[in-house]
Amino acid sequence: MNQKKIAVFRKEHFNAAHRLHNPSLDDATNKQLFGKCNNPNYHGHNYELIVRVTGVLDEQTGYVIDTKILSDIIKTYVLEELDHKNLNLDVAHFKNLNPTAENIVMVIYDILRKQLDNRYELKLTLYETERNFVEFPVE
Amino acid sequence: MNQKKIAVFRKEHFNAAHRLHNPSLDDATNKQLFGKCNNPNYHGHNYELIVRVTGVLDEQTGYVIDTKILSDIIKTYVLEELDHKNLNLDVAHFKNLNPTAENIVMVIYDILRKQLDNRYELKLTLYETERNFVEFPVE
Amino acid sequence: MNQKKIAVFRKEHFNAAHRLHNPSLDDATNKQLFGKCNNPNYHGHNYELIVRVTGVLDEQTGYVIDTKILSDIIKTYVLEELDHKNLNLDVAHFKNLNPTAENIVMVIYDILRKQLDNRYELKLTLYETERNFVEFPVE
Amino acid sequence: MNQKKIAVFRKEHFNAAHRLHNPSLDDATNKQLFGKCNNPNYHGHNYELIVRVTGVLDEQTGYVIDTKILSDIIKTYVLEELDHKNLNLDVAHFKNLNPTAENIVMVIYDILRKQLDNRYELKLTLYETERNFVEFPVE
Amino acid sequence: MNQKKIAVFRKEHFNAAHRLHNPSLDDATNKQLFGKCNNPNYHGHNYELIVRVTGVLDEQTGYVIDTKILSDIIKTYVLEELDHKNLNLDVAHFKNLNPTAENIVMVIYDILRKQLDNRYELKLTLYETERNFVEFPVE
Amino acid sequence: MNQKKIAVFRKEHFNAAHRLHNPSLDDATNKQLFGKCNNPNYHGHNYELIVRVTGVLDEQTGYVIDTKILSDIIKTYVLEELDHKNLNLDVAHFKNLNPTAENIVMVIYDILRKQLDNRYELKLTLYETERNFVEFPVE
Repeated sequence: MNQKKIAVFRKEHFNAAHRLHNPSLDDATNKQLFGKCNNPNYHGHNYELIVRVTGVLDEQTGYVIDTKILSDIIKTYVLEELDHKNLNLDVAHFKNLNPTAENIVMVIYDILRKQLDNRYELKLTLYETERNFVEFPVE
Repeated sequence: MNQKKIAVFRKEHFNAAHRLHNPSLDDATNKQLFGKCNNPNYHGHNYELIVRVTGVLDEQTGYVIDTKILSDIIKTYVLEELDHKNLNLDVAHFKNLNPTAENIVMVIYDILRKQLDNRYELKLTLYETERNFVEFPVE
Repeated sequence: MNQKKIAVFRKEHFNAAHRLHNPSLDDATNKQLFGKCNNPNYHGHNYELIVRVTGVLDEQTGYVIDTKILSDIIKTYVLEELDHKNLNLDVAHFKNLNPTAENIVMVIYDILRKQLDNRYELKLTLYETERNFVEFPVE
Repeated sequence: MNQKKIAVFRKEHFNAAHRLHNPSLDDATNKQLFGKCNNPNYHGHNYELIVRVTGVLDEQTGYVIDTKILSDIIKTYVLEELDHKNLNLDVAHFKNLNPTAENIVMVIYDILRKQLDNRYELKLTLYETERNFVEFPVE
Repeated sequence: MNQKKIAVFRKEHFNAAHRLHNPSLDDATNKQLFGKCNNPNYHGHNYELIVRVTGVLDEQTGYVIDTKILSDIIKTYVLEELDHKNLNLDVAHFKNLNPTAENIVMVIYDILRKQLDNRYELKLTLYETERNFVEFPVE
Repeated sequence: MNQKKIAVFRKEHFNAAHRLHNPSLDDATNKQLFGKCNNPNYHGHNYELIVRVTGVLDEQTGYVIDTKILSDIIKTYVLEELDHKNLNLDVAHFKNLNPTAENIVMVIYDILRKQLDNRYELKLTLYETERNFVEFPVE
């Protein structure tokens, strides 16, 4: 029986507005830390999300996980929540959390981890721009 | 003397928040016309802008236009105005103009046309996402 | 009133099997003309389709055409017909027509032209691979 | 002497037809499991393969492995076998094996592992589409 | 008989060193005009070349031109001449011609125009970087 | 307190000329080992560099590291040194070191490691072309 592990990836995207702002700091400190990313009227991004699910092969399907099912999970639990939203104003997770790429990827991880069977390992890459991106978790 | 025309392209990008909203229409009509793009709290994009300048070769430089100079013009007159901004709130051009890709590309054209010598033809492509983009002007 | 023309683009993709084969020629000639693309058991591609619709701005929406509507038209009339299909066996248009990129793009043009109002101009780019693609129509 | 490990990557591509089908299951189950990917007439993809070879630096060449040699190995042993083929019908490895991305990447791994000296570690990434891809092996 | 015109594109690449330098100007003027691109020891690029051939459909093949043949022409007459070369030192065309993207694209046009039947129209796009590119000829 | 590790990536690029040549070997051996990459007049590339910095979240900023600061470090210490240069002639590190992608990535690692606080882990990916790239270090 084949018990070797394989990683399966699915790429999705969403568009959102945000501003970088730590509500526990004063405005001058926020301005100094985050510069033009602190614009009180927000700016935005086309986020690209790559979801990596690692597991062993299902003998019947030849899949680790059906990417159609994986895509549906991402759409239902992540994109419904974040796509075409203002992360600071519209998304409860960021009410008191600065929506940096680091914090966004950790929020998405918490959402997806609950939707995936424990036999799967999960790792995410989130592109804020083509040149700035983050990966979580890291061993 | 070489009088053949060549087109030179320079690609730049900016990040911005916006919402699609026609201020002369009521909220229900806006909601119906623009769906989730009408979110009152805004969403956002990584816009990619391709500027195409057509002209004849300068014999001395072997350039139609120095792309370093072209890049500086785009940065000074377009990116300074639009990057990390909320198009609806922060940019005067969109005070009474719905910031669709079509309207954004026409605004950028008006800005750049004034900065370029009349011997150059100008055409723009603006990517709102990898899958949605516009071109202006079209013969 | 603004009567300037703008082009709007929407990119979609489909996956299909095909073989290059002209049914009016004998097997040896087909083999010589099309080489490994003539494999009787088929091979396949991830086709990328870029649909360019040119028109004037609608004053109310700020759109030439709503890309959501354009995307739905492409999905309903083109992708339903071609995606995850064997072009030679499953698609009536190619019963007696060799499914080269040139012929595929002309078939898609005929399909989409009927679905778009006459006030729109239509042009298509079809990528068979990242390195081989076609454009139709050309003035 | 430098004994640090470096990974070298080479990207190649091939085009193939396939259908997802487990010959040990009945047609209704196959249809239910694989949907339109089960089309009996096949569909196809432009597969992108990234081969990652890890080893220590050769002092004379400054290479871990000459990517020209690596490319030749991939072309001779993988692309010759899979390019412009019907994976289900033309490739012996998939006679009784469902050609999912997971199974294809494991077959390619077995082929390449035999051609590479044991001092090299090998890892593969296989893109079936831009949005669906797999990696093997995973620790 | 189908006499509609279709454009067929083939993308190829080559790597080369160059420096921007007009031999008819003194060193100070060259330095001022071309900045770091004037480095006397050269720098280099991965050039991407897109060759667009426009013509009518050949009824027998369903091709405007076989992209395999087009690719062979580009490899034989352009890549053999420019790939892994120093444009200023190794390529006769640039002995007295500054190898700007504009001049390179015009040189390639002259080379390819002679190799293509007169029934084909030819247009080229040359990428010097992802952000700087040129197109020739332009109507 | 959140002590989970996250990786942050920043992508930068530079253009350079080089030739593959081991000064301790004779010309015939160099020619045989490196083929057209040994051209005495050099060739060149658009190098893409991806810098991966791993660490724990800074509670105040929500950053592992500010990518603006990371970008400035890369520009000051790597791009200033390598961009628009001849690696063999202009860069001291390669005076006696063959500028293969493997050696370049190890040189860049040494440069950046000194500029980054010890609490950060560092890993680099260097693209010489879209199809040839290297990663360092590897566990």
